[in-house]
Amino acid sequence: MSAPACTWLGRSVPRLEDGPLLRGLGRFVDDIRLPGLLHGAFLRSPHAHGRLTAIDAAAAEALPGVHGVLTYGDLRRVLTCDRIPLAMPAGAIRFDVDPFVLARDEVCHVGEPVALVVAESRAVAEDALALIGLEIEPLPAVVDPRAGLAPDAPRARLDCPDNRVAATEAAYGDVDRAFAGAAHVVREAFNLHKGGGHSIEPRGVVARFDQAERLLTVWDSTQMPHQAKRALVRTLGLAEHQVRVVAPDVGGGFGPKFVFHPEELAVAAAAMIVGRPVKWIEDRLESFTATVQERDQHWTIEAACDAEGRLLGIRGDLVHDHGAYTPYGVALPYNSATNLLGPYRLPAYRLAISLCLTNLVPATPTRGAGRPQGTYVMERLLDRLAERTGLDRAEIRRRNLITPDQMPYRTPLRTRDGKAMTYDSGDYVECQRRALALAGWDGFEARRAAARREGRWLGIGLANYVEGSGRGPFESAAVRVGPSGTVVVTTGATAQGQGTVTMLAQVVAEVLGIAPERIAVVAGDTNASALGLGAFASRQAVTAGNAAHAAALAVRAKILQVASAWLEASPADLELVDGRVQVKGVPGSGRALGEVADALAGAPGLALPAGVAPGLAAGVDFEPEGLTYCNGTHVVEAEVDPDTGTVAITRYTVVHDCGRLINPMMVEGQIVGGVVHGIGSALYERMLYAEDGQPQTGTYADYLLPTADVAPRIAIHHMESPSPLNPLGVKGAGESGTIAAPAAVASAVEDALRPFGVRVADLPITAARLHGLLAAAGGAAP
Amino acid sequence: MSAPACTWLGRSVPRLEDGPLLRGLGRFVDDIRLPGLLHGAFLRSPHAHGRLTAIDAAAAEALPGVHGVLTYGDLRRVLTCDRIPLAMPAGAIRFDVDPFVLARDEVCHVGEPVALVVAESRAVAEDALALIGLEIEPLPAVVDPRAGLAPDAPRARLDCPDNRVAATEAAYGDVDRAFAGAAHVVREAFNLHKGGGHSIEPRGVVARFDQAERLLTVWDSTQMPHQAKRALVRTLGLAEHQVRVVAPDVGGGFGPKFVFHPEELAVAAAAMIVGRPVKWIEDRLESFTATVQERDQHWTIEAACDAEGRLLGIRGDLVHDHGAYTPYGVALPYNSATNLLGPYRLPAYRLAISLCLTNLVPATPTRGAGRPQGTYVMERLLDRLAERTGLDRAEIRRRNLITPDQMPYRTPLRTRDGKAMTYDSGDYVECQRRALALAGWDGFEARRAAARREGRWLGIGLANYVEGSGRGPFESAAVRVGPSGTVVVTTGATAQGQGTVTMLAQVVAEVLGIAPERIAVVAGDTNASALGLGAFASRQAVTAGNAAHAAALAVRAKILQVASAWLEASPADLELVDGRVQVKGVPGSGRALGEVADALAGAPGLALPAGVAPGLAAGVDFEPEGLTYCNGTHVVEAEVDPDTGTVAITRYTVVHDCGRLINPMMVEGQIVGGVVHGIGSALYERMLYAEDGQPQTGTYADYLLPTADVAPRIAIHHMESPSPLNPLGVKGAGESGTIAAPAAVASAVEDALRPFGVRVADLPITAARLHGLLAAAGGAAP
Repeated sequence: MSAPACTWLGRSVPRLEDGPLLRGLGRFVDDIRLPGLLHGAFLRSPHAHGRLTAIDAAAAEALPGVHGVLTYGDLRRVLTCDRIPLAMPAGAIRFDVDPFVLARDEVCHVGEPVALVVAESRAVAEDALALIGLEIEPLPAVVDPRAGLAPDAPRARLDCPDNRVAATEAAYGDVDRAFAGAAHVVREAFNLHKGGGHSIEPRGVVARFDQAERLLTVWDSTQMPHQAKRALVRTLGLAEHQVRVVAPDVGGGFGPKFVFHPEELAVAAAAMIVGRPVKWIEDRLESFTATVQERDQHWTIEAACDAEGRLLGIRGDLVHDHGAYTPYGVALPYNSATNLLGPYRLPAYRLAISLCLTNLVPATPTRGAGRPQGTYVMERLLDRLAERTGLDRAEIRRRNLITPDQMPYRTPLRTRDGKAMTYDSGDYVECQRRALALAGWDGFEARRAAARREGRWLGIGLANYVEGSGRGPFESAAVRVGPSGTVVVTTGATAQGQGTVTMLAQVVAEVLGIAPERIAVVAGDTNASALGLGAFASRQAVTAGNAAHAAALAVRAKILQVASAWLEASPADLELVDGRVQVKGVPGSGRALGEVADALAGAPGLALPAGVAPGLAAGVDFEPEGLTYCNGTHVVEAEVDPDTGTVAITRYTVVHDCGRLINPMMVEGQIVGGVVHGIGSALYERMLYAEDGQPQTGTYADYLLPTADVAPRIAIHHMESPSPLNPLGVKGAGESGTIAAPAAVASAVEDALRPFGVRVADLPITAARLHGLLAAAGGAAP
Repeated sequence: MSAPACTWLGRSVPRLEDGPLLRGLGRFVDDIRLPGLLHGAFLRSPHAHGRLTAIDAAAAEALPGVHGVLTYGDLRRVLTCDRIPLAMPAGAIRFDVDPFVLARDEVCHVGEPVALVVAESRAVAEDALALIGLEIEPLPAVVDPRAGLAPDAPRARLDCPDNRVAATEAAYGDVDRAFAGAAHVVREAFNLHKGGGHSIEPRGVVARFDQAERLLTVWDSTQMPHQAKRALVRTLGLAEHQVRVVAPDVGGGFGPKFVFHPEELAVAAAAMIVGRPVKWIEDRLESFTATVQERDQHWTIEAACDAEGRLLGIRGDLVHDHGAYTPYGVALPYNSATNLLGPYRLPAYRLAISLCLTNLVPATPTRGAGRPQGTYVMERLLDRLAERTGLDRAEIRRRNLITPDQMPYRTPLRTRDGKAMTYDSGDYVECQRRALALAGWDGFEARRAAARREGRWLGIGLANYVEGSGRGPFESAAVRVGPSGTVVVTTGATAQGQGTVTMLAQVVAEVLGIAPERIAVVAGDTNASALGLGAFASRQAVTAGNAAHAAALAVRAKILQVASAWLEASPADLELVDGRVQVKGVPGSGRALGEVADALAGAPGLALPAGVAPGLAAGVDFEPEGLTYCNGTHVVEAEVDPDTGTVAITRYTVVHDCGRLINPMMVEGQIVGGVVHGIGSALYERMLYAEDGQPQTGTYADYLLPTADVAPRIAIHHMESPSPLNPLGVKGAGESGTIAAPAAVASAVEDALRPFGVRVADLPITAARLHGLLAAAGGAAP
């Protein structure tokens, strides 16, 4: 009897990526070494805001080893447009605030690139920076977006009419009537803090321009090589076949590498101007001061419920720090506003959103992309309503959860592409039930009491969330089998360490009956896949995964067609096993896939197998019908030391549902990483600026990341509610861990300190802040 | 009113290739300069046949600057198989005579590569060659294939059972009965000579191996990058995504660059072994002695006709020199045998074909690929029958020509892919009529008489031919419009100077309404087109041209679909003009093609135009239904000096029908080049070998190519019988000039010397040979 076809989907296959990385064979941008390579360093604005009046580069240019000191005017000569075009247009944007390649006549945040020195070495380039005479006439800076919206606020940019760069609204239902009839109303202000993506590998670019062929190759530590190529084509006046962008190994993306930055254009333009390849690798200080960040949001919000704790409405205002430029449009606060709904029924809603220009780095997504803020606000409001109604925090949530019989659940909101925001599948009630059971929610009071007897203050908290994942409009993948028998998957998806290669290999392995390690995945190269979008919105398993799946099915059909004739057997009687197509149950009866590929590659003048088109390959651009909504419940137990304000997370339970699992181990890796990221956001990370816009936290001694000693063990339980929106039934998982963690941690901390009367509203809950809250609350435990 | 859509097909558009070439911006293989580049030189066998007993490389390896002296054993370590696999399998081949990468233990022709020195410079590498101790025990050589087939002949290769490497037959009808009932029979032996392709740019290879990524890039002066990649994948044990072959600018192909040569593999393997890129550029002596050649054929043949000159049958034997190895199978003599039929009705036929191994370079196609020989034999036989029947040479041909009402005309023979050899269209009778009229055939006797009065001997001759062109199984082309508005055509077709780029640009320009100069064509890069065959069999306009045409139509349909929604107009009311899609007759009403492409490239989370798949592109693998048969008539007037034996061609007329013309100027360029090539073959070119297999003609002082002073002005008249086999209606044109020229020239020379009783049978008709013929005939003019 034949062995059953092996199954690669749903197995924790070891990651294909790890072998080369662990053996030192990774190739990151800084590993790209080219003959004649020069090194770039950026002169950056020391002021948050100012008028750029003069740049004296003579002394820098005279330094031996310097090949050029390039300013805006120098680069502009090879550019076809003045600014980097907005990647994500949106009607809500009131005026154009796209960035320049280098500061033209105004600097708008500390760290803004003003000049690029190209030299024989990075050391020489940095020496030259010190020799550049930079004259800037300082101007008042806008740092707090609330203050920036005041009528008499200084302008963050002289070329803009005011600071309110965009205004929009998320609204439905009669929210005022809902409030008028409410049994309970709670009001709160939540201030959420600015932070960064902090990938291990900072940004980096190597650009080479071949003058003879006018071919620009850019190795770029980016999540979005196709978007980078598009921006380069447009700004440099080249055609698509003249630009290749390669994202080699990328040491973490987390959002900042979603954006096309001025430095990427400047380095490419410099390579064209100096006629030599140029490398720039961001240092950590640049990463703190010049890489996009997110999260400064100020919510003033109220929630209403009926006597049974059922939500009636939420209304309020959101002021969002936009930073100094607009590389990304309004998606970030819109994600916050829409994700606030979470897994709950909310009958009426109105959120007025204002985006304020500030003299800080542009605000663009980091992992979660605005969703953690919306979830945080909703979950804090539910905690407040629980308190007000006297309901258990889990019970008030349960009463508001969308139930499985309501699926698919169409909310009154719309997603970015204008489609109804519809939750595709999931059992939110069961998810919370399991999380509470696994976390021992009901037994917590006993644990709390036991701890209290030891002088420790324990709290428990929970948060539910959804995440719209798998965003379109499409992703590309092609599957090709060559005469060598190797299966090559090319895709517009990109890999930053999340396991994209292994994920795609498993999907294709399942269909073609070949071990994943015999499948090569080429991602992140615009020459390998003409189309592509890349990594954002926890989308790649959904979009590229299903594209690869469909492509593999087409290849499989072709294999069966050819083999059916060769083996004189019905396709239904054939199977694909271990790289061969054979008659079911007759090992050795068939042919290697490479033989099929060889016959379809064509030889001069010889016929192909009858009725079969050339090539053993198929490409698919998978267009998702809509977002797939993963969901989950986090339950956190934390111990708080009221004397020092420190928080230790003692138990962390996640029940997570991202539909069908391709590789449970990799999903767990994503969840663990996301939770720890969220813990950092809840307790530690905060980018601080002085009132004049000077960054105060430019090292990891000032800006604390969660380290292994503070990361708890995280118990993860999977539910699998397949998405009806794609053949694989998968949903995204990459960001979801981040979304609930701040809310759940805050809930637990507040619960621990309930006896002290402390309320947690703002993040991060640093020891200093908590200590302050305790002091303000009187400091005395009951 | 709107201007009518511009028409690019059928216009003599200046070649897009010429600007860069004329400005010195061409990039040939020797222009590829890489960091760390090493240079290779091959040690070659000085013997035509011998046992390789020892190679002492110690002194060569010790020479400063030498990085390696690589022998078969060294290279074998990185190869997965012993020999270079046969590109064109054929059942007629009796035993395996594929070449080794370097000689293993036997050398089989002078110039066979034995070792490869890799050094800092070519000069050092050549110095090192002289230091290698090479021990070869000489063996008897087979030089004449007729002698080689004798039972007691020495074996050309010790590892083969005998020299008859293949035997096959072209036959149909009852040929013996035809002869039995014939009114006239003529018998003749024709010996055709060996010659080469002689592109201006010799062969050349640069190979680079990236150890970290295991990526092999090979820049190769080849007609067939995809076949080269396939051979490299197979022999080096790499997968398809690890090998890229690029044919950059190629300075002429003409057949020899169709073949994958041992040097291409050896250089690639050397780059893997020494860990540095390696370049090898063939020098002219290598080109004479080590590059494949063709044409040594020996025909013993007879033809029968009835009393009115109508052909009844042809029968005989063909002995074909196969050379020492088989890179190409039996296609060459098969082409000779099948193309003998030409545009004539031949009721019965039997040709026994023997392929003999010799100790000469392998015989593979040069321009015409065996067809000139078949046409030569048929046309000489018709001249003989004309003489025998007393008919005018044109008249006997006319009586045997296939008539238009017989089209499509199915011959009893089959093409290589097993399909019936069927002439698709053409008016052979009218073609000859026009050629005779244009050449003044009827007035020739007056010109002859006038010349005779001046003491000059004039002759006139003619030849008809067909050429099966556009061979499959397919060719690939993709058309992609990017947001920049540039149209990029990628194709598996390759360019060696024949105007492929311009041809494809014109085809696409016609469909997309955009000037050809705004279309970029990327050919000859296996990374740009995953599939492809390349340049052979006058195929690229037919196969790649129609692939590009179909792809452009698909792109056009997509443009109309998008624009129809945008402009609220029916697709039928839209037109594509000058890079825009607009409402007919309303200039400025529309949108640039780049805007359509931009909308289809996708932005994160934003919707594509409704109902339209991503990307403004389409790829098509065009599979021709059968060969397209171009045809023509050449009429030659020549003046012969009986005292010296020199021939001067005084008038040359071509009527040519290759179906629909894409670019008449480029077709004429191909015809002129082909005719001159054929004149060289008729009068000058001959690769001579001594009896021991030593080449005697290794420079252009010994081996004469036709130079500008002997090339006549060539009058070309086009007929256009569209092929019904492809949407463009085109047929191939690249080789056809070569096919008739030797026959027409021989006919004219014989005609000039008819008074002397000279008969021309063997080629080339050098002055020395003609002088000999005149002497043998008695030398006296009437």
